[in-house]
Amino acid sequence: MRFTSETSSDGVAERLFHLDEIPGVLWTPEGATGTRPLVLIGHGGGRHKKDPDVMALARRFVAECGYAVLAVDAPGHGDRPVHAEYDRLATENQARAEADEELAPLIAGFHALVAHQTVPEWRAALDAVQALAYVGRGPVGYWGVSLGCGLGVPFVAAEPRVRAAVLGLGGASASAEVAARITVPVEFLLQWDDERVPRAAGLALFDALASAEKTLHANPGKHGDLPAFELDDSLRFFARHLN
Amino acid sequence: MRFTSETSSDGVAERLFHLDEIPGVLWTPEGATGTRPLVLIGHGGGRHKKDPDVMALARRFVAECGYAVLAVDAPGHGDRPVHAEYDRLATENQARAEADEELAPLIAGFHALVAHQTVPEWRAALDAVQALAYVGRGPVGYWGVSLGCGLGVPFVAAEPRVRAAVLGLGGASASAEVAARITVPVEFLLQWDDERVPRAAGLALFDALASAEKTLHANPGKHGDLPAFELDDSLRFFARHLN
Repeated sequence: MRFTSETSSDGVAERLFHLDEIPGVLWTPEGATGTRPLVLIGHGGGRHKKDPDVMALARRFVAECGYAVLAVDAPGHGDRPVHAEYDRLATENQARAEADEELAPLIAGFHALVAHQTVPEWRAALDAVQALAYVGRGPVGYWGVSLGCGLGVPFVAAEPRVRAAVLGLGGASASAEVAARITVPVEFLLQWDDERVPRAAGLALFDALASAEKTLHANPGKHGDLPAFELDDSLRFFARHLN
Repeated sequence: MRFTSETSSDGVAERLFHLDEIPGVLWTPEGATGTRPLVLIGHGGGRHKKDPDVMALARRFVAECGYAVLAVDAPGHGDRPVHAEYDRLATENQARAEADEELAPLIAGFHALVAHQTVPEWRAALDAVQALAYVGRGPVGYWGVSLGCGLGVPFVAAEPRVRAAVLGLGGASASAEVAARITVPVEFLLQWDDERVPRAAGLALFDALASAEKTLHANPGKHGDLPAFELDDSLRFFARHLN
């Protein structure tokens, strides 16, 4: 793990790093010492680790909850090189969708493929970050919607350090079986008029989660219209399960 | 409006009253003066205005938010006399359900009938309580699930003083058209494994609400298993819309 920059503002320290070929960012309270909860944020498709939405949420987790927050670029995103095979598949899926194939199963199949790479990458990033004295091996949360849900479901199912997860804006097409291995508390965000994920697919993914405590939060609006008050609720959800 | 008793504990004043033939209860902060938000709680079927669940929620609204809270007995419930016609219909519906008719539309039809009586009764109770100097004409919220939703949907649709409502554990069978007249923010509680309200009927009622801001909160469990953290959220929901 190689840190490449460290800055600080409004009490939040931000450290950019590379772990082998994975570019990442770690936010912590300025001057933090000792063990604390850690939240991994999975960014959306076409976004990256320092997307404004990711940054805003990360800074709230740090400033309001005292957590450490980790985000890494997904393959082919942010500071990572173009990934020829994923690019080819994405283009092919786009063409199939334009030929009137249903988009949701194509997206879900693609996410399942990419997750074979991201699950071990994210586990390695957790290992590295939790080895830092000012993060430590505290409880871990995962927050990710859209691509962050497609990649997050296999991650949360595979990684026992994750104690609670916010997921959503994703459907069951390819991930219902994997979702059935998730048993930690989940808050699942669904947009009632999502133009990318059919309502029934989102409800089916929520249904498939094996968690004894899981809550579906559905709001009117399209894929990108998640209401701001749901982020307030994400903070409370993690406070309930990680503190 | 005739008060019949006044007691106080832990900073919460409780006044029992009769408004014509309607028995009711009003909770306020002890020694309250001036105008404040008012929440009307609609109790569940077979319950009453001083049901332990109603009391517990009411006391939280008063103690944590400073609101006034009002509850009245529904016809045939609590301190009200048996209502012969409603009783006959309930018995008849029970027999039809045992003869394998679908229960949810029977319940919904029954609620719609009772609401013709309760909507004007609840409006009269609001009038009376808001005339008190220590309650006043502040913003009004409605909280009701199950029977409290079946009677609450027509009430919230009809009463412009209601600015926000928590509803749930009810289905659309008879009330979708009425729900389509509701435009205030709604938090809608749904139990994913509700044995009395089919999941599709609950989702359809949420769908029918015309509110620009509405949030569905669905949790695993049966009709009576609403998680305690949803009540915390009701407080925050009203704080967002009534304060």
